[in-house]
Amino acid sequence: MTENPFAKGAAYVNGAFMPLEQARIPVTDWGYRRSDVTYDVVGVWEGNFFRLNDHLRRFRASMTKLHMVPRESDAVLARVLNELLRLSGLRSAYVAMDCLRGSPAPGMPRHPAYAQPYLVCYAVPWVWVAPPDMQERGLHLMIPQVRRIAPEAVDPRVKNFHWGDLTEGQFEAQAAGADFAILLDGDGNVTEGAGFNIFCITDGRVATPARGALEGITRQSVIELCAELGLPCEIRDIPVEEFRAADEIFACTTAGGIMPASRIDGRMMNNDRPGPISARLRETFWARRAQGWHATPVDYQTPYDEAAT
Amino acid sequence: MTENPFAKGAAYVNGAFMPLEQARIPVTDWGYRRSDVTYDVVGVWEGNFFRLNDHLRRFRASMTKLHMVPRESDAVLARVLNELLRLSGLRSAYVAMDCLRGSPAPGMPRHPAYAQPYLVCYAVPWVWVAPPDMQERGLHLMIPQVRRIAPEAVDPRVKNFHWGDLTEGQFEAQAAGADFAILLDGDGNVTEGAGFNIFCITDGRVATPARGALEGITRQSVIELCAELGLPCEIRDIPVEEFRAADEIFACTTAGGIMPASRIDGRMMNNDRPGPISARLRETFWARRAQGWHATPVDYQTPYDEAAT
Repeated sequence: MTENPFAKGAAYVNGAFMPLEQARIPVTDWGYRRSDVTYDVVGVWEGNFFRLNDHLRRFRASMTKLHMVPRESDAVLARVLNELLRLSGLRSAYVAMDCLRGSPAPGMPRHPAYAQPYLVCYAVPWVWVAPPDMQERGLHLMIPQVRRIAPEAVDPRVKNFHWGDLTEGQFEAQAAGADFAILLDGDGNVTEGAGFNIFCITDGRVATPARGALEGITRQSVIELCAELGLPCEIRDIPVEEFRAADEIFACTTAGGIMPASRIDGRMMNNDRPGPISARLRETFWARRAQGWHATPVDYQTPYDEAAT
Repeated sequence: MTENPFAKGAAYVNGAFMPLEQARIPVTDWGYRRSDVTYDVVGVWEGNFFRLNDHLRRFRASMTKLHMVPRESDAVLARVLNELLRLSGLRSAYVAMDCLRGSPAPGMPRHPAYAQPYLVCYAVPWVWVAPPDMQERGLHLMIPQVRRIAPEAVDPRVKNFHWGDLTEGQFEAQAAGADFAILLDGDGNVTEGAGFNIFCITDGRVATPARGALEGITRQSVIELCAELGLPCEIRDIPVEEFRAADEIFACTTAGGIMPASRIDGRMMNNDRPGPISARLRETFWARRAQGWHATPVDYQTPYDEAAT
């Protein structure tokens, strides 16, 4: 019996499907060399995409903002993503879609308008941003010295790989004995961490930053759950002083759902455990997921046929 | 007669030499996926590296700042770069050295400290940032709406691929009919353009921004030439109003030397021609280069031998 060559991950590179380890980018591609790329990630949990159309809509908006038009329509892209699941057979996966600039052909002006953007997509077995044991004890967060890249320079709503600030924050977190850094903007308001949005709760009121962060789809799900549960939820600036003094804090992301924190800058919250409202939101989130909330079933049977889309 | 497979470019990827088109990066590598990478570029002109040791020193400082230690020493790296020229036979080339984060092995914490950084280097035929005819008529510059990423977020002295702001600037430049955008910082001071430093000249005094820009090696060469020529040269903040009203402006970069501008935001300088001091600096720069200034000859004879370094 031959092992499925796609079992460790399946990829699509500008029209061709291949095992993940064959998916590579030219060193001269501006998607790498100028980080001239946008991306999105949709989760598949137990055979269902979560909020697939919301991810496709955001990805298309990001590409448009960057003047990128790949050859695939949203309908074709959805079939491509499905094929990555079918080839790999993965039931729970992290499914990435990148649009890279490419680079101008020789002899053309060296301006991004003369490049032909293209898609690279892949599915890999589900990876937690924070391992389950860390989620159980609660994340240990800290505020680093490094500041988040300002929206006036790079729009954080266009999902991007400009992670130099977030990476530096992760080194500062490690030095402080914490798990994750939460970066401030230039005005002293909290923004986001390395790949996740944040919320804080004070006196029963939930809040998440209005600016300087990705408009996360899991964040949107939290806002919807707060409405369902009758929890007041505000989208506004959150000064670092308020954040440091909050009753509860949690992070949220596609590859982690809702992840409560138990410490901020060394201060313990809730006797060093996830807080009750955060825990309730997390339980509700996974219960709703199990009920098929915002789910699109993966079609593991029908092979990809671009002509049929 | 077989064509040299390295003629269009030679590359080195973590220990192996190959033709440039084979040099590719895994789509999952954090060097791409988080733009967790630093780089440098040294020019070779007519068989000589320009300021090779200055580039090696800056590249090492950048890697150290990012907590990256590849397996190659500076001495080995210098031999690697030489080998790229020997293999390709290029007499004038753009020679890039990148250090990528890699990514943590499966099962390790998903933190950059657990990855093994590695080098990717390549040499390609010389490419001008601005084509020679554009340099002769003078660059047309403009100030875009997008702001440069702040040093508090990403240190511009650590050469990086966080070009989202510069790329957006190039689209704004194109829409305005200009060649290049010069980005401002949050305080209204000019910083740099897409891959080059800038200088302006008012009443015979030369100035270049003190903050928010790469500490360019060609910029350093200009500062040295100003001293030789008896031109006062200041490193300080340059407000956009001063820049827009300057007598002369020029850009400088490894892949272009000194490139005078003739227009800024549609205003013509020097009757729409490169200014006299800029032109003198440019001529002096290339004359000094021809004399062997800061030159390290490429050794086109001796094959690479890592054990011998």
